[in-house]
Amino acid sequence: ELVFSAEWYARMEDLFRRRSRVMPPSNRKQAMLPAGSELLDNPIGTACGFALDIGRARFFFTPGVPRELRRMLEAQIVPRLLARSGLQTAIFLKRFHSYGLGESHVDSLLAGVDELVPDGSVKLGFRAHYPQLETKLTVRGTDLADVRAKLAPVEQEVRKRLGNFILAEDEQTLEGVVIKELADRHGTLAVVESFTSGQIAARIGHLPGAEKVFRRGIVARDLAEVQAAVGLERASAADALTRESAEAVAAAARTLTGASHALAVLIDLDDGPDRIEFGGSICLAIATEGEVASRRSRIVGGREWVRLGAVEMGLDCLRRHLQGLPVVERIDFEKV
Amino acid sequence: ELVFSAEWYARMEDLFRRRSRVMPPSNRKQAMLPAGSELLDNPIGTACGFALDIGRARFFFTPGVPRELRRMLEAQIVPRLLARSGLQTAIFLKRFHSYGLGESHVDSLLAGVDELVPDGSVKLGFRAHYPQLETKLTVRGTDLADVRAKLAPVEQEVRKRLGNFILAEDEQTLEGVVIKELADRHGTLAVVESFTSGQIAARIGHLPGAEKVFRRGIVARDLAEVQAAVGLERASAADALTRESAEAVAAAARTLTGASHALAVLIDLDDGPDRIEFGGSICLAIATEGEVASRRSRIVGGREWVRLGAVEMGLDCLRRHLQGLPVVERIDFEKV
Repeated sequence: ELVFSAEWYARMEDLFRRRSRVMPPSNRKQAMLPAGSELLDNPIGTACGFALDIGRARFFFTPGVPRELRRMLEAQIVPRLLARSGLQTAIFLKRFHSYGLGESHVDSLLAGVDELVPDGSVKLGFRAHYPQLETKLTVRGTDLADVRAKLAPVEQEVRKRLGNFILAEDEQTLEGVVIKELADRHGTLAVVESFTSGQIAARIGHLPGAEKVFRRGIVARDLAEVQAAVGLERASAADALTRESAEAVAAAARTLTGASHALAVLIDLDDGPDRIEFGGSICLAIATEGEVASRRSRIVGGREWVRLGAVEMGLDCLRRHLQGLPVVERIDFEKV
Repeated sequence: ELVFSAEWYARMEDLFRRRSRVMPPSNRKQAMLPAGSELLDNPIGTACGFALDIGRARFFFTPGVPRELRRMLEAQIVPRLLARSGLQTAIFLKRFHSYGLGESHVDSLLAGVDELVPDGSVKLGFRAHYPQLETKLTVRGTDLADVRAKLAPVEQEVRKRLGNFILAEDEQTLEGVVIKELADRHGTLAVVESFTSGQIAARIGHLPGAEKVFRRGIVARDLAEVQAAVGLERASAADALTRESAEAVAAAARTLTGASHALAVLIDLDDGPDRIEFGGSICLAIATEGEVASRRSRIVGGREWVRLGAVEMGLDCLRRHLQGLPVVERIDFEKV
C-alpha cells in the first residue's frame, strides 16, 4: 500500500522552484511511498529513497541514478547500518592516488606494509580506474586516536615506497594539486593539445580558482595546424612530431598567451582501425621562462586508452615539474 | 578449493604482451578459479569471471570494474540466463536520445504511445542522464519480424511527438551526428569555449573521422581573453557578454581558422560559492559563410549542472543548425 508523503512532495516543489521550473503533476507519484516506510533524503534529485523491514531484514531503496545512489549510500544508508550494528568501532579510510604504476606493481612495492601493525587492523586495498590507481588503507580502532596511531607508520611507509608517483591523497585530485601549485606562485597556464582534443583543458579550466590560473587552451588535430595556432611557421608535411617540435610549440604558446607555464601534449596517432595494439607516440613539453622540459613516450592499448593515458601523463608531468620532481621517470603504461 | 586455469593464464600473458608489458608473477592468482566453475571471458581486463551453482541457484561472478562488468553482463551473463529460461521470445530495445525536455515532460508528451499496440507488448521507459534523456521502447514478440511490426507505429509516433528534440537514435551519439553532418558537406569546425573549458572540443575532436572535420579549439575563461585569442580587439572591462559579442567571436574564429563552421559557447558565470541556485548566462553563436545564428539562455542548478548543460546546448544547437532545424527553441532546462 502506498501513502502520500507531504514532506517529500514539498521538497520536490522546492527543488523545482529553485531551478525556476514548475513541477509537472505527474511528479506526484514520486511522493507515494510504501506505508510504514522511513523516508531517505536525496539532496540532489526528485526521487527520494525509503527503508522498510521485510521479514527480519531491513531493506534500503534508492533511485538508480549512480551519483544520487552514491550520495545516499554515504549519507543515509551506511550511518544507519553502522548504528544498527552497535559496534563501538572507528573505521578510517586513507587514500593515495598515483599514476604510472600498475596495480600489481604497486602491490609488490607495498608488500608487507599492512604488517607494520601486527594486529591486522590495517588492510591494504586497491581501486584501479585507469590511468589512476587508488591505494586504500582501511584502519579499524577503538576510536580516532587509536586509528591515527596505527595508521601513522603505515602511511609514512607508503609515501616512502611510492614516492614521486603519489599525485594526491584523500579528497585531493591531480587537477586540484596543479591549480594550487600554480595559484601559490601566482602562475598562469596555457595548454596545447592535439588528439586529447581539449580533455586536458577540460580537467582544469572549469574548477573554482581556475579563472585566475587558466589562461588559454588551444586544440588542433595535426602538427601544422598546432604550429599555426601558436604563431609558428607551419612545418612541411614531411616534418614528424619530435620532442623538439613539442618544445617549440610550448615555448611559442607561452609567449603568445603571456602565461607563466605552457604545457603542450602532442600525439602522433597510429593509422588504421581501433584495436588493442593501436597506439600513439606522445611528445610532451612544459615551457617556463627561459626553460623547457620535455619527454617522449609511447602508449598502446586502443584509441581511448591512449587518449586517457596522454591526458593523465600531461597533467602528471606538469604536477611533477611544479613540485620539482623529475618529469621523465619510467612508467608501466608506456611501451619502450 | 581453487584450481589453476591455464586457459586464463595464457590469456593474461597475451594481454600483457600485446600491451608490451611483462606480466608480474603476482597476477598468477587471477588465474586461480573455484574448482568446477565455468570461466566467463573478460575481453578487456586481466580478471576473468566465473559461474557456479550454489544450492539450486547459478551464481555469476565478475570483476568490479564497471566497464568490464557491463561488457561481461551483456556478452556472457544475459545470454546464459536467456538460454536457461528456455523462452522463445525475441526482445528488442529501441532508443531515442533527446536534449532539452525533462523526463516528466517527455512522459506527458508520449502519454498513450505504448497503447498503440493493444496487447501490452511495447513498454515505454526512460533513462535520464542529464542533460540527455533516453526514451526506451522495449518490445516483445515471437520473433524479430513480429517485433518490428509492433514497433513501427510506436516509433513513428515517438518521432512525431518529440520532433526536433530527438538528437540521435540507438547507438548514435550527438557528437557522432554532428561529425557526420559536417563530413557529409566536407565542412570543418572551430570551437570557442569559456567556462566549458574544452569539454565541447573534447566531445568531438578525438573521434574517428574528426581529424578531417575538427579544425581548431580555443579555450579562455574571460571575454577579453577570448577576443584576443580570435584576433578581435579586446573589449573594455565594462563590456558584458551579449549575443552580439558571441556572434563576433564566432565569425572571427571562422575567419582565423578557415573553418566552414565556428561554434562559440561563452558563459557569464554567477559569482560566489557553488549552490543549487548558482547559474550562468550563455551566449552561443554559430557562424557560417556570410551568416551567424545565435541564442541566449540561462541555466541554473550549480556549477557542474551549468557546465554540462552548456556543453550539450552548444552541441545540440550546432546539430540543429546543420540539420536545418531552429537553433532557438524553448527547452525545460533554461530559466526565462
